Order: sequence, then structure tokens, then C-alpha cells
Amino acid sequence: MTPSLTPLVTMLATDMELVNATILARMDSNIPLIPQLAGHLIAAGGKRMRPMMTVAGALLGSRDATIREPAIKLATAVEFIHSATLLHDDVIDESALRRGRDTANALWGNDASVLVGDFLFGRAFELMVEAGDMTVLGRLASAAARITEGEIKQMAITGQPDTPVDDYFDVIGGKTAVLFSAAAAAGIEITGAPAAQVEAMRVYGMELGMAFQIMDDALDYTASAEQMGKNAGDDFVDQKITLPTILAWQDGDAEERACWQRTLGEADFAEGDLERAQALLASHDAVNRSVVMAHDHAVKAGAALAPFIGDERTAPLARALADAALFAAHRAS
Amino acid sequence: MTPSLTPLVTMLATDMELVNATILARMDSNIPLIPQLAGHLIAAGGKRMRPMMTVAGALLGSRDATIREPAIKLATAVEFIHSATLLHDDVIDESALRRGRDTANALWGNDASVLVGDFLFGRAFELMVEAGDMTVLGRLASAAARITEGEIKQMAITGQPDTPVDDYFDVIGGKTAVLFSAAAAAGIEITGAPAAQVEAMRVYGMELGMAFQIMDDALDYTASAEQMGKNAGDDFVDQKITLPTILAWQDGDAEERACWQRTLGEADFAEGDLERAQALLASHDAVNRSVVMAHDHAVKAGAALAPFIGDERTAPLARALADAALFAAHRAS
Repeated sequence: MTPSLTPLVTMLATDMELVNATILARMDSNIPLIPQLAGHLIAAGGKRMRPMMTVAGALLGSRDATIREPAIKLATAVEFIHSATLLHDDVIDESALRRGRDTANALWGNDASVLVGDFLFGRAFELMVEAGDMTVLGRLASAAARITEGEIKQMAITGQPDTPVDDYFDVIGGKTAVLFSAAAAAGIEITGAPAAQVEAMRVYGMELGMAFQIMDDALDYTASAEQMGKNAGDDFVDQKITLPTILAWQDGDAEERACWQRTLGEADFAEGDLERAQALLASHDAVNRSVVMAHDHAVKAGAALAPFIGDERTAPLARALADAALFAAHRAS
Repeated sequence: MTPSLTPLVTMLATDMELVNATILARMDSNIPLIPQLAGHLIAAGGKRMRPMMTVAGALLGSRDATIREPAIKLATAVEFIHSATLLHDDVIDESALRRGRDTANALWGNDASVLVGDFLFGRAFELMVEAGDMTVLGRLASAAARITEGEIKQMAITGQPDTPVDDYFDVIGGKTAVLFSAAAAAGIEITGAPAAQVEAMRVYGMELGMAFQIMDDALDYTASAEQMGKNAGDDFVDQKITLPTILAWQDGDAEERACWQRTLGEADFAEGDLERAQALLASHDAVNRSVVMAHDHAVKAGAALAPFIGDERTAPLARALADAALFAAHRAS
């Protein structure tokens, strides 16, 4: 059966409406540019996977109504941290298209993207303070620092086609998986759940995040602009080193490596290079092998949820979360 | 007598050495670029006025040895927040480079400045979590959000020579004074001092910060490169609206306003425009009037310290703080 995000979205709908309302309320400012720019980004939406992690974690931990408000504040903070990193990424990538729309920096300029990103970081921490749990706050603060370490390391390996695969995993662990992981763990931690349950959600989020990013990187070489909301081959032109190119490099002969070196390594691009890269990836089955690795992480994510699947109260939500992980690793085509 | 920073620096020397050691330890990362870039910025140093506010606040509140460690962590966090905003400012300045202006900040590029800035924000919040006081953390988180609001508003008034003076005060209150204020208040707040004392330090930091920024803006039209560590007239070329230009605009006739509009408003610069602007400022005594306003704020900063000057234990440090405020508003020439 095709995995689906729908059961999870349905179960979290009530809480996610509150998250959306909080997002709107808290991006407000008497400086009109801030809600304009933040609204452009956040209204574009995406699936809100990260705040869903927090809300789901909180619901697994407790159905107590008093926990809703801090959980929703934390979920909003998570989305703000994510949005801030997106705004700053756009400056770094100088990408003109995100989620199928013009990027904020293309519309308002780099200055505004940097500053509104900082504003959202600040607001995120205000929300976490209001949620009132120092341990949870520390968890998310560490995640914020790790995200940037991942992105800086990504910058460092850019243009290095011989990057070892472990360095890639380190990059995506930092830039993507850590926030999923901290979001999921924070949600259940604020309910006062036992440490083993917090740890289970931490692992779930981590594995889901790995699956999500590996898949995103694999699809960059296959999907059309409509599917991805961005252009196919973006990573190639940006000299980004991702799992498919690492696998193809490892298996490539001297001539193939010279091709990767000229393009990814030296940004010396010629007509037809993207098609040639895609052909090389296909000849080593590099995209499919990446998808399989994404799927393995998704399976591990689901396995981490065993304590919740064994409990009648939490089983339906846990099963929906496991399905969401498989969905993240599912190949749309 | 010429006001001096020396008494304050001397009184805080022991604690500031610990702050410097913590700065070095906490900017470390296994990604070499981070300590390299952060070190380049932070080693360049400046006077470390902001963390001094925190350390001084803590010493006013309590001489208890157990309060040193959290106070030093907070002071380090304050310096990291300041450093992060400086790094992000560099990105914004680089867009000025595209307008044909020369800046020295091309060592690592935009990407690294954005990301290392984010990293320092993350580390700042980790340090605040370790300091362990949620109220203090909330105060500094709000300051971080307000700083970016101030900078965004500054961006919004850029190129608007008819900006009302209150908008300017709002900008510098946000981008500069709020961090001085939160730094000073956080330092004493973490000692558990009475609310009135925390408020006194909040006002002190705010007034000192206003004096500091007004002075900085005034000197931009007078100082030589050696005095400022940057070029005279930088703000003019960047179309930044500051107190001297606002005063000159308000008092200017139609012809003078046309000149401000062409230059600050439309960036249509010609040979000799900076000298003409300086002459216009001189004819309205705009720089001197700005310096007087900075001095007024410095006096208010000192007045806020009355509760500490009335106490024998805290009087010497409070007097040194009052002197530091006058120093910030002192015209070097």
C-alpha cells in the first residue's frame, strides 16, 4: 500500500490549526516588512512536517488539555526556526525559486531575508521561554546551533565530489534531521513523559529527517520543477555534493570522475552536462540506491515507535507517524 | 575632567578575563571555519562594552562567588549576540559593495557570515540555558528580536531624508540600546536583586546605548578613518538617515532639502557632495546638537545609578559605570 501523510494530518488537524493561528499572530510586528516577508514564506506553507512532530509528540505524551498551549508554542517555535534557516539558505544559495514561488530574497533582497530570519529566531526563543521548560529550551537551542554547523559543513564540502559518504550523513544530520529530532522530542518532553519515550521520539525524528533529506537530494536529479517546487538539477549547478553523486563518484572510473570534477568540482558547465550527470547516476543506479537508503531510515523511524505502538491509547497516532516516515521516503513517480 | 573607561575596565578586569576565555572556548567547533571566522571578528575585539554591562550588573547585585559562573556565561552570550548581528550586518554592507562602494569584508563571503552568525546565536542561547534563569533568558530573547526589528526599520528609513526624529530614536533604541539595556539588566537580575535595581540597570543600559549610537552616528561625519576604524562619510554613501542629517533636513530650506534628497534620497552622488553635506551640517550646528543629545542620555544613564551610588558597597563601581556612560558620549576631538 502506498504510504500516506493523510492519517497523521487528520489526527493533528485541530492542533495544527492552533499552530497556524499562533504562527500568524507571532510573526506580527509594527514594521510592515516583517509580516509581509515572513508571510510570503510561511503562507507558502509546505506540509508543516516539523511542527507536526512536536504536536504529535505532545499528544503521545499526554492528552491533558493543559499541555496543549505550551506544545503549540513549541511547535510554532520549531516552524520559526525552520523558516529562519530557509530565509538564510536562500541568501546563501541565491536561489530564485522555492516551493514554486519566487524566494523572499529575490523579492525583497538579501538584507531583508537575513534580518527577518534573525527576527524569527528571536521570536522562536521568546515562544520557547513562554513554554517554560528549560530542558526543552536547551534541546532546541542546541538543535539551532547544530543546524548551522551542518550548513557550514555543507558549504565546506561544496565542490568536493570525492566527499566521503559519512561527511554527507553528518551534513544532513545537522542541517535537517536534528530539527525533526528535537521537534519530536521536545513535544513529548514537555508533557513530562519518561526519558525512554523522549528518546524514542528523538530517534524517530532523527531517522525520519535522514530519510526526508536523502529523498529530497535524490529527487533533485529526477523531478520536474512542478513536482519539487524548484528546478531539477539545482544541486548540480550549485555544486552541492549529495548521496547520488557520492555513490556515482565512488563507483566511477577515471573518465567519469573527471566529468564530476569538471562540473561539481570546478563549475565548468557545458550544454548537456545535467543530462550526462543523470546518465552517469543511472548507470550506477545511484538514485535508486539512495532511495533504498532513505527507505531504510524510514523503517528505523517506525521501529523507534514500538513503545507507543504497544500502548492502545497511543497506537493509532504512532502508526500514523510510522506511515508518515515511509511517506517521506516514498518515490512519487 | 575628561571621562574615562579605565576605572570600569580595571574593576572588571578579573571577570572579563574569564569572559574572554569563555568566548574562546564556546566559539569552538569541529568545523574549522567557525572558530576561524568568529575568532577573526571577536579577536578584533573592540571594548567589549556589552558583556561588561552584564558583569558589572552581576557585581552590583552580589559579590557572592557562586554568581560568577552564570554571570560570565550570560556576558559571553551577550557578546555572541552582538557578534552575530555584526556578521549579519556585514552581509548587508556587502550589498552596498554592489552599489560601487569599497568594504574590507570579503575574506569569507556572505555565506559564511550568515551561517557563523546563526551559529553564534545558537551558542548564545545554549549559554543562557546553562545560566539557568528563565526570566533572564526571556529578557535576552526579546532583546534579540528587538535588535532585528530596529535593523529592519533602519533599512526601511534608508534613503528617506525626511524621516521624523522619533523614528530614528526607535531605530537606534532597537538596533543598539536594547542589547546594552538587556545585558545590564540580565547581569543584576541573575543575582536575584530586587526589581527596582534591575529596572535601574535596564534604564542605565538603555540610556548608555542611546548615547553610544548617537555619538557613533555623529562622528561618522567628522572623524578620520583612524579614529573610527572606518571611513568618514560611510553613512552618507549608504544613504543612512541619522540624527545629524535629520536635524539639518528639518532646518534646511528648499534648496538644501533638494541636495539631501538627491544624495541621501536618490544616491545620485557627485564629486564634493560629502564636503557639501558636512558644510550643511555645520551651518545648522547639527553634529554639535547631536553630541549634546548624546551627552544628555549619558547623564540620564548616570542618574539611573542613584540607588547604587547611595550604597557604600556598590558606589565605586556605580561611579565607574556613570563615567563610562559619559565616555561613550565624549567627543574625542
